[in-house]
Amino acid sequence: MPRHSLKHHLYVIIFGAHTPAGRAFDIGLIIAIIASLIVLILHSIPALNDKWADVFFYLELSFTVLFTIEYLLRLYCSPKPKAYATSFYGMVDLLAILPTYLALFFPAATYIGVIRMLRVMRIFRILKLVRYLQDSNILLRSLLMAKRKIFIFFSTVGILVIILGSLIYVIEGPDNGFTSVPQSIYWAIVTITTVGYGDLVPQTSVGKAVASITMLLGYSILAVPTGIITAELNQEMNSHKTLVKCPNCMKTGHESDAIHCKFCGSELAEPDERVVPVENG
Amino acid sequence: MPRHSLKHHLYVIIFGAHTPAGRAFDIGLIIAIIASLIVLILHSIPALNDKWADVFFYLELSFTVLFTIEYLLRLYCSPKPKAYATSFYGMVDLLAILPTYLALFFPAATYIGVIRMLRVMRIFRILKLVRYLQDSNILLRSLLMAKRKIFIFFSTVGILVIILGSLIYVIEGPDNGFTSVPQSIYWAIVTITTVGYGDLVPQTSVGKAVASITMLLGYSILAVPTGIITAELNQEMNSHKTLVKCPNCMKTGHESDAIHCKFCGSELAEPDERVVPVENG
Amino acid sequence: MPRHSLKHHLYVIIFGAHTPAGRAFDIGLIIAIIASLIVLILHSIPALNDKWADVFFYLELSFTVLFTIEYLLRLYCSPKPKAYATSFYGMVDLLAILPTYLALFFPAATYIGVIRMLRVMRIFRILKLVRYLQDSNILLRSLLMAKRKIFIFFSTVGILVIILGSLIYVIEGPDNGFTSVPQSIYWAIVTITTVGYGDLVPQTSVGKAVASITMLLGYSILAVPTGIITAELNQEMNSHKTLVKCPNCMKTGHESDAIHCKFCGSELAEPDERVVPVENG
Amino acid sequence: MPRHSLKHHLYVIIFGAHTPAGRAFDIGLIIAIIASLIVLILHSIPALNDKWADVFFYLELSFTVLFTIEYLLRLYCSPKPKAYATSFYGMVDLLAILPTYLALFFPAATYIGVIRMLRVMRIFRILKLVRYLQDSNILLRSLLMAKRKIFIFFSTVGILVIILGSLIYVIEGPDNGFTSVPQSIYWAIVTITTVGYGDLVPQTSVGKAVASITMLLGYSILAVPTGIITAELNQEMNSHKTLVKCPNCMKTGHESDAIHCKFCGSELAEPDERVVPVENG
Repeated sequence: MPRHSLKHHLYVIIFGAHTPAGRAFDIGLIIAIIASLIVLILHSIPALNDKWADVFFYLELSFTVLFTIEYLLRLYCSPKPKAYATSFYGMVDLLAILPTYLALFFPAATYIGVIRMLRVMRIFRILKLVRYLQDSNILLRSLLMAKRKIFIFFSTVGILVIILGSLIYVIEGPDNGFTSVPQSIYWAIVTITTVGYGDLVPQTSVGKAVASITMLLGYSILAVPTGIITAELNQEMNSHKTLVKCPNCMKTGHESDAIHCKFCGSELAEPDERVVPVENG
Repeated sequence: MPRHSLKHHLYVIIFGAHTPAGRAFDIGLIIAIIASLIVLILHSIPALNDKWADVFFYLELSFTVLFTIEYLLRLYCSPKPKAYATSFYGMVDLLAILPTYLALFFPAATYIGVIRMLRVMRIFRILKLVRYLQDSNILLRSLLMAKRKIFIFFSTVGILVIILGSLIYVIEGPDNGFTSVPQSIYWAIVTITTVGYGDLVPQTSVGKAVASITMLLGYSILAVPTGIITAELNQEMNSHKTLVKCPNCMKTGHESDAIHCKFCGSELAEPDERVVPVENG
Repeated sequence: MPRHSLKHHLYVIIFGAHTPAGRAFDIGLIIAIIASLIVLILHSIPALNDKWADVFFYLELSFTVLFTIEYLLRLYCSPKPKAYATSFYGMVDLLAILPTYLALFFPAATYIGVIRMLRVMRIFRILKLVRYLQDSNILLRSLLMAKRKIFIFFSTVGILVIILGSLIYVIEGPDNGFTSVPQSIYWAIVTITTVGYGDLVPQTSVGKAVASITMLLGYSILAVPTGIITAELNQEMNSHKTLVKCPNCMKTGHESDAIHCKFCGSELAEPDERVVPVENG
Repeated sequence: MPRHSLKHHLYVIIFGAHTPAGRAFDIGLIIAIIASLIVLILHSIPALNDKWADVFFYLELSFTVLFTIEYLLRLYCSPKPKAYATSFYGMVDLLAILPTYLALFFPAATYIGVIRMLRVMRIFRILKLVRYLQDSNILLRSLLMAKRKIFIFFSTVGILVIILGSLIYVIEGPDNGFTSVPQSIYWAIVTITTVGYGDLVPQTSVGKAVASITMLLGYSILAVPTGIITAELNQEMNSHKTLVKCPNCMKTGHESDAIHCKFCGSELAEPDERVVPVENG
């Protein structure tokens, strides 16, 4: 793609965030997305929709036209239009505009319009481009490092919930509202996560005992994912600090503000010359 | 401001906490604030107010006169009265007395009187002056250090809540109580925070499945802010520990096993000769 | 007190836990306490009490006689009977037997009998004597070290709860169940701790918005006490490990299983000769 | 057992997971278990069971025959059949098939069929054999290391719940739904774990005050198990990191900044020459 073509200029503005124009485009887009979300939310409130249905309709139509132009421009200036169209955010961009056109031809499909709320995910893309990148990377990396432990935790919770749900189904039975095993597993999830709606509660003494055990289990195993993520975050944040190597004794473990090696006293490289491995996410 | 003027004396007593008189003033003020809060709370209980309305009225009036005198004295002795009046605590001080005078002239405005409960915030100012300063600083600094990660976490929760709320709105619909998108987002917040009032619960099987996912999400992502704050607190408390001072450049911040100053390279004192500042609590 | 007197023997058995007889006494006492608690609990269930009231009464009487003998023996063999009688556990021991005698003379006072459930606290004393001492010391010390931060946290929660409760009182008012400020503060506590009974829920849109903020606040500030206690526990557990000093280079920071100094290589004292500062709790 | 006998081949396939055949067997078994669980769950839903009762019955019968063959093969090829039959997983395997045969002869015992949901535990055994072993070991070891602290925590919660339950029983009494001490302890558990069903709530002012204290207690002591597990996990993961081996005595467990072996005093390899075992995930 030639560097000075219109296509490239558009690409830098629409997909990038390093030029003033690109940043202005991102801010404008975020404002448009939030405004369109507010219209969608207000539109769903019966009392308001009865009065302002027309205003909401035309506002929504304008936003959709705007997002359609943006979508077509993205398709035009993207170096690989097909890859963009089939990517996750390409699909989100399409789903954000399609329902409005569908509603024009099939007026019955009002509920489908809520799919447009998926526009909120587009904010993620824009945030990803800007300055919160590094911190969200540390969070994501910690979660990825811990993904096996988290999988074990969720398997354990899943199996616990199935066993406790089956147990309460046998103990309480359909007469007390536990009409089926999935319903009872739903109760177990409501209880073990300490949500406790109260729409389904054990009536018998044995059932209450099982419920008590479920609650105490849920209350204490909550400590496990917290422990996992804290330990990973701790390590992630420490490893960020200690990647500088002393040019004399070759030891690492220096803090980010160190000028001299803390083991042999020789000078370290200047902070801005240090090659700290950067995330390539 | 001359050091021995009445104004300066008053300033030291009212705004300071380092003299016996200043400390006595603070303690007296805290007692008055708490007493006035208790009167306000009792006044709001219908059963008690029916009997003792007059007593509560005159007690409240006396407290208001007291706080008005204090406010005027603060304005008088403050070196920059205007800056005080427009500061956050200046506004709180004013809001704490104004409603009582308003109620004298506009007896209808009874609810506005609850604004006086803001007096409780005045306790913060007094606490800030005294000995809990350092610990609350560590807490605040950790929160500030983690502010970007906390912002990312809240954005994620916000977007999750909007998507899950829209989803349940489509699935359950107005017939099951999910009358609008904001109402459904409210349900999503009640569920993801594991509060679980139970005033709004899914009725359909698909809705219960979405609710289960919401609960498990809320249950496990709770680990993220905890991990963030714990990791920051850990670092904050460790950095506090290593207050070893370099005998050459006088800089602190060396790790406990450092032999050479990491800033200028000169040798540090032996670990057992280092004067580590002890908490003087 | 002569070492071989009956009094001293009794003292070692009743107050101590280092002799086989002392340990047997403790185990017997725990069994008696738990058995008497079970009788008290069963006695409170109407369906069971109707049938077995007499059995429960005579069982409870026997336990009370047993505990009375134990109490008198403790008074007799304690080196400072008065100090024992006025100590916290001395009071608990007395409260555990008194209500039964009271009930003999004043049959009306049935509810007061539940005070006997305080017997459960006596288990604490016995546990304190035995092997869980060290671990519970680490926990207690961490909590003590963090006591200022915990106080700040609770003050903040207290002030938040008062402000949010007053706010919801103004917004919702008595018509929606928020009949007074204390009632509204109760709602704020139910919500901020994520308990969410659902007996009192906001009905207006503004009230639901305030409730949402309260929930998100409660959900996230839960991270603060966890962070505090984790950070303290971490330091407590690390400081336990690294108190060994090298006799040659005088450096500390060695792990508990180290035989040689990790800095200069000279031998460390044998693990069982190391003077690790023991808790004097 | 001869290495090339049919028995040994079967043993390697059924009990092992290191050969392609063994892995294929495990995957097939997991699919069969999950399919049979889905059938059991669907069977428990009245609406579906009315229509498809026959299909579910024959599917369940086939799965049971399959699991019976598997059970007999395990008994046949196990080197110690008796030890297998009496082991925990041997019992689970038997309980997973028995109820179906019982139901053939005693059609009344429909509820007992839910025992077959225990099949879900068999997934654990298979997972145990494969690659998640190491991470689940770290989690388990942390829990084991902390078991005394966790025991102290649960004792404290248990005693708190008994005292608070007895208290609310005295305050609220049977008229407000607190019909017995166990019922009140159940309420205390529902409240302290922040589940908050709302089926049983205090009605009096004093009761609400006690409930508030219970909630705040539950809200804050949740920090204790989290702190314990996080601190243990931190240490467990750190100890994993320092697998540097001494070239002389071959012992591991040195800290990352150690220069000399802490066991024999000989010099360790330079930090950058150390072969730190990498996770082979």
